[in-house]
Amino acid sequence: MAANFVAYLAIFTFTAAFSSALASDPDSLQDVCVALPSSSGGVKVNGFACKDDANVTAADFFFDGLAKPGLINNSVGSIVTAANVEKVPGLNTLGASLSRIDYAPGGLNPPHTHPRATEIVFVLDGELDVGFITTANKLVSKTINKGDIFVFPGGLVHFQKNNGDKAAAVIAAFNSQLPGTQSIPAALFTATPPVPDEVLTKAFQLGTKEIDKIKSKLAPKK
Amino acid sequence: MAANFVAYLAIFTFTAAFSSALASDPDSLQDVCVALPSSSGGVKVNGFACKDDANVTAADFFFDGLAKPGLINNSVGSIVTAANVEKVPGLNTLGASLSRIDYAPGGLNPPHTHPRATEIVFVLDGELDVGFITTANKLVSKTINKGDIFVFPGGLVHFQKNNGDKAAAVIAAFNSQLPGTQSIPAALFTATPPVPDEVLTKAFQLGTKEIDKIKSKLAPKK
Amino acid sequence: MAANFVAYLAIFTFTAAFSSALASDPDSLQDVCVALPSSSGGVKVNGFACKDDANVTAADFFFDGLAKPGLINNSVGSIVTAANVEKVPGLNTLGASLSRIDYAPGGLNPPHTHPRATEIVFVLDGELDVGFITTANKLVSKTINKGDIFVFPGGLVHFQKNNGDKAAAVIAAFNSQLPGTQSIPAALFTATPPVPDEVLTKAFQLGTKEIDKIKSKLAPKK
Amino acid sequence: MAANFVAYLAIFTFTAAFSSALASDPDSLQDVCVALPSSSGGVKVNGFACKDDANVTAADFFFDGLAKPGLINNSVGSIVTAANVEKVPGLNTLGASLSRIDYAPGGLNPPHTHPRATEIVFVLDGELDVGFITTANKLVSKTINKGDIFVFPGGLVHFQKNNGDKAAAVIAAFNSQLPGTQSIPAALFTATPPVPDEVLTKAFQLGTKEIDKIKSKLAPKK
Amino acid sequence: MAANFVAYLAIFTFTAAFSSALASDPDSLQDVCVALPSSSGGVKVNGFACKDDANVTAADFFFDGLAKPGLINNSVGSIVTAANVEKVPGLNTLGASLSRIDYAPGGLNPPHTHPRATEIVFVLDGELDVGFITTANKLVSKTINKGDIFVFPGGLVHFQKNNGDKAAAVIAAFNSQLPGTQSIPAALFTATPPVPDEVLTKAFQLGTKEIDKIKSKLAPKK
Amino acid sequence: MAANFVAYLAIFTFTAAFSSALASDPDSLQDVCVALPSSSGGVKVNGFACKDDANVTAADFFFDGLAKPGLINNSVGSIVTAANVEKVPGLNTLGASLSRIDYAPGGLNPPHTHPRATEIVFVLDGELDVGFITTANKLVSKTINKGDIFVFPGGLVHFQKNNGDKAAAVIAAFNSQLPGTQSIPAALFTATPPVPDEVLTKAFQLGTKEIDKIKSKLAPKK
Repeated sequence: MAANFVAYLAIFTFTAAFSSALASDPDSLQDVCVALPSSSGGVKVNGFACKDDANVTAADFFFDGLAKPGLINNSVGSIVTAANVEKVPGLNTLGASLSRIDYAPGGLNPPHTHPRATEIVFVLDGELDVGFITTANKLVSKTINKGDIFVFPGGLVHFQKNNGDKAAAVIAAFNSQLPGTQSIPAALFTATPPVPDEVLTKAFQLGTKEIDKIKSKLAPKK
Repeated sequence: MAANFVAYLAIFTFTAAFSSALASDPDSLQDVCVALPSSSGGVKVNGFACKDDANVTAADFFFDGLAKPGLINNSVGSIVTAANVEKVPGLNTLGASLSRIDYAPGGLNPPHTHPRATEIVFVLDGELDVGFITTANKLVSKTINKGDIFVFPGGLVHFQKNNGDKAAAVIAAFNSQLPGTQSIPAALFTATPPVPDEVLTKAFQLGTKEIDKIKSKLAPKK
Repeated sequence: MAANFVAYLAIFTFTAAFSSALASDPDSLQDVCVALPSSSGGVKVNGFACKDDANVTAADFFFDGLAKPGLINNSVGSIVTAANVEKVPGLNTLGASLSRIDYAPGGLNPPHTHPRATEIVFVLDGELDVGFITTANKLVSKTINKGDIFVFPGGLVHFQKNNGDKAAAVIAAFNSQLPGTQSIPAALFTATPPVPDEVLTKAFQLGTKEIDKIKSKLAPKK
Repeated sequence: MAANFVAYLAIFTFTAAFSSALASDPDSLQDVCVALPSSSGGVKVNGFACKDDANVTAADFFFDGLAKPGLINNSVGSIVTAANVEKVPGLNTLGASLSRIDYAPGGLNPPHTHPRATEIVFVLDGELDVGFITTANKLVSKTINKGDIFVFPGGLVHFQKNNGDKAAAVIAAFNSQLPGTQSIPAALFTATPPVPDEVLTKAFQLGTKEIDKIKSKLAPKK
Repeated sequence: MAANFVAYLAIFTFTAAFSSALASDPDSLQDVCVALPSSSGGVKVNGFACKDDANVTAADFFFDGLAKPGLINNSVGSIVTAANVEKVPGLNTLGASLSRIDYAPGGLNPPHTHPRATEIVFVLDGELDVGFITTANKLVSKTINKGDIFVFPGGLVHFQKNNGDKAAAVIAAFNSQLPGTQSIPAALFTATPPVPDEVLTKAFQLGTKEIDKIKSKLAPKK
Repeated sequence: MAANFVAYLAIFTFTAAFSSALASDPDSLQDVCVALPSSSGGVKVNGFACKDDANVTAADFFFDGLAKPGLINNSVGSIVTAANVEKVPGLNTLGASLSRIDYAPGGLNPPHTHPRATEIVFVLDGELDVGFITTANKLVSKTINKGDIFVFPGGLVHFQKNNGDKAAAVIAAFNSQLPGTQSIPAALFTATPPVPDEVLTKAFQLGTKEIDKIKSKLAPKK
């Protein structure tokens, strides 16, 4: 099962997944500035350079990748499918994006933050236990069901857990074109290069052996 | 504001318009600032004053009012149910909100703008013809189906039309806690006091009689 | 006269005219970033790329195109002359611009929005009936005279009508370098490709024949 | 604040400075938030608290105080008349304001900054020599005439001088509801309590006697 | 808020975390808006309501609490002393604050985020191993010494560790008046009410017993 | 820009002014956007274009240039050493920067503004008399000592004077990646081309001869 978590991370990287975030993006200075991939245009700026207006089409504002559940093949039992500016170029400079998150029974979207956005989830199916933690270390949590919405304030650590016996899914909305996602376990125990053991042992008051065990279990599978 | 809000809802029901969109809200200066109703606290500010932290609960970040389709009882055949800061007080200062829009077969969410937000819709059910118009008078439109998403850039006139033969519904996400909605037909033909006839006749190149006919047809039912 | 409206639109396109707007632009990150035309520099970004500092001159911050009345040759009897970042490159990243609007006797600046700015007008000459409509469908209107100012809040539909018997003119100030203008009649009835008839008939509760008549009258002249 | 404001105006009249500013104001979170005077409502916030919507009228968005030239009775020969949020309560949260500046022949609007806005002037009458200085100590200046516009980038020291032989006047537009004005000579030589002599002598490489002479000449008249 | 704050400080002392944050604060709408404590004035807003201008003094912009090392009496060996808007009321609406962080030999400022600010540290004394982790799970780290500075980008997990044999100290600067600090170990293992065990066991791939051991070791001392 | 920058530094050295600034920078749209020098990449934008992510290293977020006192060789007796985006490319889009200011006994950082930032100083050594002036011409000043902090609100004229008999130094923090500095005496008396004599004589109520004397004394040494 440990090895499975690695797969989770791998998918993470692959799907450019993950959900949310904090601050408000800068305002747009024209109607639209459809993102031109850095790879094609060359120059990289805050956000993306714009495609020529003459080439803008409805397809730039459309995405059908959230229609079906993502494939869950990892140890945590959840998968995020993003519809941010990297997938929907028309979102560039517009300050918003969506994600779909699917959860197997028992599945967890591990504690994480979105450095650049607030998140609101709408439950498509199933039941979830959700919560966020304030900087005063207060947990605000609730069980939510199909059709319910819940708000995760910008930048705060939060999670969703499917404690039901059937699959669950949500649509997550963010006030950023690219909210970013920082999964706490992944950031601390699987970063490259690794976070030094002496940081983790002192932070979690664990021995090096226990830290290495966590690192091993969370390590992406080869 | 309470009385004002009732009037707003009445019009809302009639035109069935309305979802939201454009600028980024100011950033939050603390984890959360749960809205305190003006009616209860007295002072009105940009957005809302905050509830005392000690009284903040998970219910402030939760809403179940989008779970079921709204009741469509108007001539355009669509209804918007909002989940903005007025319904979800925890959204105050967080820069995001949602709405649910339901469409009868043939139903239309009439051309409208959101003065303060970009909008992204996710289709829950059915098929919709959607579009927005740029300030260069270019229509960008597409037919979208269940599971698809489409982006309406901030402040631009846009619409959704259900040309299918069954009901449709979307979840709409906005990057503002209160995007505002300005239905074009309602604003021009049903405002109180009314927009002067000489403005409308010249704007639409119609006679007074024709303008009055539109006003009469669009007037909220008693 | 219908044909004349087309001319109005044509000039619109030509002068890149138009007046107003909504949100606050992003703040500047240096003293000045004088706009480099996309056509000359290649890359397009949110706003414009900057000219080399060494080539910046006072002419970049100057414009004499608002000194004289614009030529009114359209059916609505008004013309907007813009002094935005497209005409005054020094405005890039500075979050402000001006326009001059001229009105023949009886002339109308048709109901429109500025998706990215608030507008304040100062009356240079004549008398105008002006108004804006809130998202609660309340019309706020007033007759203003030479030397008066009036505020049109960001993103809301507004208009100005010269009911006097002599020409009128205003200077309009915006808090955006390119506020954008969306004329409601033009957006709905003259967009390319056209807004579908079934959207307009349902929105305005008119028959196809009446919609086509409006389209025909508002169509740009060949 | 009332007493404070009187003092401010007194200095205003003396230095005849004063129009504009730099950064973009925070975005509005509702259609309008008409300023409620601190003196009447009690609470002071960033900007102003809002008047009840039911009491909002067109008069809140209107001002006729810029129609006539201000009275020039000071040594610099110019006078600023502001139309900011303190005079036009409807401007609260909308991010824009205007001023009128009148200049006697030979009159000067002394070097000053607007800490919170960019300024654009439109010349109503006469001819002016205007300029701003960048942080690289480059003077950007020009002679402008009736109908011309000129841009003063946010936060930079700038001035206008009427070198013509007749009166001149401008309308100045700002992208802030209260741009603030800091007249350099007034700030350094007439502040209360006074800026210490040892700061001024070293800054301007003058003797105490010369500094005191300037202070005496610039001191507000009793 | 007062009671809340005491609890906050208690946790602060325990985890010894915590300095900074991410997004840019909203801009100021006047020169200064010195914070009026919610406890004294009543109304709570985004940030703080303002003190009357007449009562503003230099003391509102001054703080001497960073002059001496904070007292380190916790298991991680570091302590943060904040100079944010709660300590320096003049910072309200100004978008900046400072902290001082002291580290015993071997001391750690545990992995944490600042939901509302970027942080720059300047080393006053000693040597530190510092690092941040991007959302792509890349660790960016460096050893820094007296007089060096290092930047921690907004919202990302970061840490500082004193691997030297003498005490170390830094001044940390933030672009927010109240950046907020979320210590990862404290948030996940000491929140009230506690984060459910099934979330933590799945997230870290540990058994309940091991999770409880961490909770016990990190629990604030009575 | 390279040549420009040299000139800038030359003036910097002369006036020994210069540290900080006012408005909040636009928010970042990705984790980091390390500045690519205009000279190497070609395109100039608001702020800077970004380096390719693959080439980002810890060195981009590090600077050791504030470790030692700057060399004071000018008439005012102070020197500013900046650690802004031009020196620390990792600061691009992050909205913060630092400076170090050194003061000889009797040294003055002359009255100046930062058009794009608020400043907070932390005293490293010595004693300073500091102050800022509001737009209501109120001087807010204080004597501060080692370990104290003082806030200079965005955009307002301020100064620091070392009236002690030993050297002093501060670390200054800004909420902008490039706050800009406008030294008042340098801007008015040493700009290129020069501010016209008739502006300065009228502004300071001095004769041309006295103005020329100041210009001569403040002129950069060859």
